[in-house]
Amino acid sequence: MDATIILVGTELLNGMTVDTNSIYMAEELNKYGIEIRHKLVVGDNIGDIVEAIEYGNSKSDLVILSGGLGPTMDDLTKSAISEFLKVELVVDRDDYMDLKKKYDSHNLVLEDKNLREAEKPYGSQTIINDVGMCKGIYIDKIAAFPGVPRELYNLFPKFLKLLISQGKLEKNIYIKDILVWGIPESVLETKVIHLFDLKGIHYEFLVKDYGIIIRLQTISTNKLSVDKITSGLYKIIGENVIGEDEERLETTIYKYLKEKKYDISLAESCTGGLIASKFIEVDGISSVFKEGIVCYSNESKQDRLGVKKETLDAHGAVSYETCEEMLDGLDTDVKIAVTGIAGPNGGTEEKPVGTVYIGVAAGDKKYIKKYLFNGNREKIRRITMMRAMFEVLKILKG
Amino acid sequence: MDATIILVGTELLNGMTVDTNSIYMAEELNKYGIEIRHKLVVGDNIGDIVEAIEYGNSKSDLVILSGGLGPTMDDLTKSAISEFLKVELVVDRDDYMDLKKKYDSHNLVLEDKNLREAEKPYGSQTIINDVGMCKGIYIDKIAAFPGVPRELYNLFPKFLKLLISQGKLEKNIYIKDILVWGIPESVLETKVIHLFDLKGIHYEFLVKDYGIIIRLQTISTNKLSVDKITSGLYKIIGENVIGEDEERLETTIYKYLKEKKYDISLAESCTGGLIASKFIEVDGISSVFKEGIVCYSNESKQDRLGVKKETLDAHGAVSYETCEEMLDGLDTDVKIAVTGIAGPNGGTEEKPVGTVYIGVAAGDKKYIKKYLFNGNREKIRRITMMRAMFEVLKILKG
Repeated sequence: MDATIILVGTELLNGMTVDTNSIYMAEELNKYGIEIRHKLVVGDNIGDIVEAIEYGNSKSDLVILSGGLGPTMDDLTKSAISEFLKVELVVDRDDYMDLKKKYDSHNLVLEDKNLREAEKPYGSQTIINDVGMCKGIYIDKIAAFPGVPRELYNLFPKFLKLLISQGKLEKNIYIKDILVWGIPESVLETKVIHLFDLKGIHYEFLVKDYGIIIRLQTISTNKLSVDKITSGLYKIIGENVIGEDEERLETTIYKYLKEKKYDISLAESCTGGLIASKFIEVDGISSVFKEGIVCYSNESKQDRLGVKKETLDAHGAVSYETCEEMLDGLDTDVKIAVTGIAGPNGGTEEKPVGTVYIGVAAGDKKYIKKYLFNGNREKIRRITMMRAMFEVLKILKG
Repeated sequence: MDATIILVGTELLNGMTVDTNSIYMAEELNKYGIEIRHKLVVGDNIGDIVEAIEYGNSKSDLVILSGGLGPTMDDLTKSAISEFLKVELVVDRDDYMDLKKKYDSHNLVLEDKNLREAEKPYGSQTIINDVGMCKGIYIDKIAAFPGVPRELYNLFPKFLKLLISQGKLEKNIYIKDILVWGIPESVLETKVIHLFDLKGIHYEFLVKDYGIIIRLQTISTNKLSVDKITSGLYKIIGENVIGEDEERLETTIYKYLKEKKYDISLAESCTGGLIASKFIEVDGISSVFKEGIVCYSNESKQDRLGVKKETLDAHGAVSYETCEEMLDGLDTDVKIAVTGIAGPNGGTEEKPVGTVYIGVAAGDKKYIKKYLFNGNREKIRRITMMRAMFEVLKILKG
């Protein structure tokens, strides 16, 4: 089974809005083995929307639209579906009452124009929206959802349940995500590909900026095979595993810190708060995160962390010695110190742009390593963040 | 004139890669008054690519493809264009020599399969790629570029120059971007819309996460009218202007800091390094950025910034008094201190999630304000960052 996704909205064509809806829908559909064959983006123009539906309908088993369901005159998705299917737009009583209830609960007046929100092509099934006004609709292998991400996230799982209940999707899907970092996709593949040689197991690699997700998918009765593969993965590339399913590098580290009752602090120069900021994305981190020192100037390195002036004079701010003294200037169970040259300027023959020292310590373990990273300022800072956190996790795991 | 953009690559369909190329191309084309009418994404399947070209070609004046130009067997874009135009794929001498030179300079062997990189549909114009192997091509209102963003950014401006040289684009375009923050789009529009009532001036609002861009566009001979509008904008919403053209909030602040020979430091609690990290994105910031203290624990607030235990006990970490003492714990010309409750937990009746105190000081000016922001943890932290930087800029502007 394959699908075409149609995103409706002029703002998506002319570069004002980055589309994340189609990525979300694609990943959800992939879980059930539905591949996205085509994706189209069209403006708020009924002719274009109808043509896009025709195109998708002629090429795939399922057409999913997102956007253009609002109450304003340029919300044309439902009209386009009606035109394509040659059915009327109607308002059924349940949808009207539901909408009325929502308006009342927000003390809003339900104006005539808002009736558009209750309309649907004759014969459509309604998918109820718990977080917004516009319901989703499904009719003749065509589905439509609002473009507002949080409304889509509320509606789309219900749509998938509906397809399952209609026997159109396999209901007993079992999915296991293993998140790895620090190994190139090609190397990863050659190392582990033989594990996937089991019947009924679908696998794929999803390359994200927070790592590579190895997604294993099967029907629930095959769960044991997936578990077998998973333990195989840990044997071969266990060192690179930074999480499972919803876990990310920062949440996995947080898990270990809580478990071991460790607190953590950071001394960041070139990353300049990137690592602190990543940890503090984690809800609850305050129980383990003491502080981060963004010691961008030598003065700060000396005053806040006790780095010696002689050390800075003799070896420079970007050096093994400075990194070690930065690390020693912290006083938690787990520590991270990074100093480097993110560029584009500041590089020298001896210390080119991308030179970074990363120091990590936990319990009685402590080490400082020199790295040479490639890329622009942003990329170097980002990979430094990931590497530093990865090294900390290695200590915590082992 | 309008255009269809076709993105080629299975990884773009199944949610592994976020597309930014089409946004870049759309914004560049918009500058010349070319609207994007359709956008299609297709996998690495020649039939699908050909059909997408047919679709775009039948609907717009220009078809632009991105991706699928590499040397591997699943790079099919050029074959698809040839099939659509019914012409042969050929290698011309210049393209071959150019490719050979690149391989030699990288000490790589030019294998037969790599010849694919030199191929093009018979009759195509070559657009030379200075940063990668795959050239761009242009033939019969169809253009194709590599999917690697850095290569696209190198090639696309040359393509636009080519169109200009062929008289297909207006060459004397004048564009002025005014970046504003702290005012909703709807309010902004009603306040300034009357200014745009000048002949030959095209305007649009581009909503970005770093502000709203007011883009004014005209032919160069109208430059004076744009300047007139610009000064009008400053009169009405000057306080909200945070930059022009390529400037962003952080670079504008950096500009003022250098000008006034001020240094800056930060004390961040709930933002946890987000503000420091934003400043340190700016190349050269080290000349003015002293340090950032991510004082996430009370202990850190006391030890690093001298916040009194009594203050924390009496008023709590999220309070006017603590914010002020955090600010006073810094010792640069310009200071920012933020403390708040980003949620989802930690809120109380009296201090709900979203309660944030922001303190800013520069020269002899200093103030602390209380805010109540809406949204999830990430959004609250982000708007706190923007607001704090915006308040600093207000002081610096004087």
